[in-house]
Amino acid sequence: MKAAYYEGNETIRIGECVPLPPAGGQVQIRVAYCGICGTDLHVFHGKMDRRVHMPQILGHEMSGTIAALGAAVAGFAVGDRVTVRPLDPCGLCPACRAGHSHICQNLKFIGIDAPGALQGLWTVPAYTLHRLPAGLTFAQGALIEPLAVACHDVRLAEVREAEFVVVQGGGPIGTLIALVARTKRARVVLAEVNPYRQSLARELGLEVVDPRAADLVDFVTAQTGGAGADVVFEVSGSAAGAEMMTRLPRTRGRIVVVAIFPEPPAVDLFRFFWRELKLVGARVYESVDFENAIQLAASGTLPLDRIVTTTIPLARLASGFREMERGGEVMKVLVECAAE
Amino acid sequence: MKAAYYEGNETIRIGECVPLPPAGGQVQIRVAYCGICGTDLHVFHGKMDRRVHMPQILGHEMSGTIAALGAAVAGFAVGDRVTVRPLDPCGLCPACRAGHSHICQNLKFIGIDAPGALQGLWTVPAYTLHRLPAGLTFAQGALIEPLAVACHDVRLAEVREAEFVVVQGGGPIGTLIALVARTKRARVVLAEVNPYRQSLARELGLEVVDPRAADLVDFVTAQTGGAGADVVFEVSGSAAGAEMMTRLPRTRGRIVVVAIFPEPPAVDLFRFFWRELKLVGARVYESVDFENAIQLAASGTLPLDRIVTTTIPLARLASGFREMERGGEVMKVLVECAAE
Repeated sequence: MKAAYYEGNETIRIGECVPLPPAGGQVQIRVAYCGICGTDLHVFHGKMDRRVHMPQILGHEMSGTIAALGAAVAGFAVGDRVTVRPLDPCGLCPACRAGHSHICQNLKFIGIDAPGALQGLWTVPAYTLHRLPAGLTFAQGALIEPLAVACHDVRLAEVREAEFVVVQGGGPIGTLIALVARTKRARVVLAEVNPYRQSLARELGLEVVDPRAADLVDFVTAQTGGAGADVVFEVSGSAAGAEMMTRLPRTRGRIVVVAIFPEPPAVDLFRFFWRELKLVGARVYESVDFENAIQLAASGTLPLDRIVTTTIPLARLASGFREMERGGEVMKVLVECAAE
Repeated sequence: MKAAYYEGNETIRIGECVPLPPAGGQVQIRVAYCGICGTDLHVFHGKMDRRVHMPQILGHEMSGTIAALGAAVAGFAVGDRVTVRPLDPCGLCPACRAGHSHICQNLKFIGIDAPGALQGLWTVPAYTLHRLPAGLTFAQGALIEPLAVACHDVRLAEVREAEFVVVQGGGPIGTLIALVARTKRARVVLAEVNPYRQSLARELGLEVVDPRAADLVDFVTAQTGGAGADVVFEVSGSAAGAEMMTRLPRTRGRIVVVAIFPEPPAVDLFRFFWRELKLVGARVYESVDFENAIQLAASGTLPLDRIVTTTIPLARLASGFREMERGGEVMKVLVECAAE
């Protein structure tokens, strides 16, 4: 069995790993595909070395087949096609007790704080499993996790029919948010500066504005009869995005912060006061978001296959990170783990 | 008739004014008291000279008696004791059409954008009137407007019984928010640095923490079993307050921005993401907030009289501003207009 070990210093080592037999309540999964997330790239760049115990196996956007069951696992069988909701909450902290276990105060994120899916056989708690319907390919199944993020964000935003929605940032998550928001029959505008991502989004049928080429505030104001946007998703993680997000919404409009801001940006709190804006932070997903994502993916209405721009074998994981960091013509990179 | 005219350059001139006879739909009020608001002080300091047409009569926290009725005014009579909700919305903009006329995109604030109550006889549209019950004194009546602000803020925060609430800033509005939140049977902690305001708040029965003397995060964490506050009201308008507001709430806790931030402060958007925090801006009030404020004041449960620390005649208005800007032992300054 092979696994990809992150060893710090932007180094990935492909090495042998002895598959972990599933203990009680666990399953062992033969991993088909694992997508590379922006957070994985962040880890690769050493930005989370204080948190990550090296050597660590990354990866949490996956699909696969159950290879073995531990004791006391009900409802699943060897051969079942599954994906994993990679959250390991403590169950005891105030957040868990308040019903917010997905943002548990002691949350272990599987694939960062515990070994992830970038290996041939992966052992995880059975409560993390979600079944993949027959109609979904394994490549599509590996997109369920980021799609669940988008479903969570759109759900927290309470996007409704005929609303005007702006998504700031057209990477994989921003693009998926735009696609999910569109299924609510909202009008969705994606703001993105990267020409490749702009054209890919247009190919997916999305309305795209380049905020460097056009005045986004003027555009949204004109398109909404002077009102402003109902919802703004801030997915860019940029100071410009943090500045723009308060300028676009209507009175009592909603802003959803999806991006990770390592440093606190300047935020126009006066605008919150003046227009009685609302802002909500959104992180990962709950079980219902995974179920919604699977249902949506299985419905065939989303052009999920177009999001995947590169598929590489596990042995070439490091080159996948390099392709992502160049930020050129890349959206989602999938890693084929099945062969290992 | 006398009126107090703001003439720019921190100058108030007390001069004659010919009372305006009420036109159709208007009433003329004999003003009893008018409170000085932080915004009035801001105008006095020249910070709003681009907006204020000078000479201007300020004042919008008032009580009085109807002296004359214009044509087509129903439901009120000469001699009625009233206060005024000083908002003049356009009725046509997207905010008004969406039902948010209190934050109309073309809102005229009476007392800033149109002549205010710091005069003997004040003429206003009849739709701005709220009746004062017999049990309320005129001094209490002049506190209805800031109390309505507090009612609006607490309503938007959805404060519930047994919740843990932190109010950052113990000026008149912060203190009133704390008192109103307490009527919801929440546990309320007021964070304030000014020793006089601390001791006044304690006399009002409020729990007070000096965030310079104690670690507020540690305190709130310990008092909530590690969870964090349910609601934080940011009323300080300081960079320290903007920094603290994101450190106190529990997962999915709520922050209400009441303060006016002239410059965008640094805001920890990562914390919004990490704990799925919510933030809402709150501005002025709606009609229901005035009615709630009047009912609450008339119930006698709030120590409103203790909020008033100074009462001065109209002729001494400038000295009232000077007392407020020194920021020493002052809470609410009322101006007696009846004699004019």
